[in-house]
This record gives sequence, structure tokens and C-alpha cells, in this order.
Amino acid sequence: MARVVVDVMLKPEILDPQGRAVQGALTRLGLSGVTDVRQGKRFEITLDGTLDPERETALNRLAEELLANPVIEDFTLRIDEGAG
Amino acid sequence: MARVVVDVMLKPEILDPQGRAVQGALTRLGLSGVTDVRQGKRFEITLDGTLDPERETALNRLAEELLANPVIEDFTLRIDEGAG
Repeated sequence: MARVVVDVMLKPEILDPQGRAVQGALTRLGLSGVTDVRQGKRFEITLDGTLDPERETALNRLAEELLANPVIEDFTLRIDEGAG
Repeated sequence: MARVVVDVMLKPEILDPQGRAVQGALTRLGLSGVTDVRQGKRFEITLDGTLDPERETALNRLAEELLANPVIEDFTLRIDEGAG
């Protein structure tokens, strides 16, 4: 079994109003010195068997095409082989 | 400068229709053997100075109260001190 984590975040140059709202709330609720908050998405994907190169390529392609919007988002993909 | 990453995921026993939709799409688009997908949120928080115990406590409290809904979600908090 392989476990893959894909993190999708807005590119640094794209405004993040959700993150900005969270930043304001954290400060208002008593946490000092918050200079930036970015909010993104996290996908935890569980796969049967091992992740051969072919499936890894498919996964990279789909992370870019389906999970992220490459115009405004960056993604990182981490493989945690043999989890579970 | 301290960087903190908070990951918020639905508890395992809570149905995740978004994750289920992504699972269906991954399979349809050519990735075989996807047994589970969970979708959650990721917050990247940047803080001025160092994270003393008082601010760390505040951050833990706010992650639970503001960023996650403890009824249906779990969170993990990772501190990446001295980033940047």
C-alpha cells in the first residue's frame, strides 16, 4: 500500500483573501506577530500495491491537471511508500 | 521568523464526499488502484520572531478553535523554526 500526500497552495504572487481573513482572526484572537497566512488544500491518497513509475507519472499528471490549477496554484507531491 | 504548518483533515469516521469525488475522477482519468482519497485544508502561517511557549499555546488553541472544527476534524501542527 502506498500513501501519497499532495499539497496544493496558491502561487506566492496570487492574493489569498481566505488566508488574509485567517491572519486577521488569529491576530484578533490573541496571537501576536502573524505576518502571513496562506490557505491551501491537502489530499491524502491511498493506493493499492506499490507505486511503479507508470502510476507515479499518472499521479503527477493528475495532480497537475485535476488537483491543482496550474495557472494560479503550485503543488507538491510526497510519497509515503509502505504506509499501513 | 517561524513558519507553522497546520493540516486539518476530516476525522476518519466522517464521510468525505469531496475526497470520494476526487477518487472517482482519478480512477476515471487513468490511475488504477486508488482505494481512498481524503481532502483537507493546509494553513501556512508565518510569524515574526521566535515562537515562545506562550505563543505556541495560543497557536495550538487557535488551531483547534478557529482553523479546525473539533467535532468533525483533526489537526496536526508542525513548527519549522528559523525558516527564511
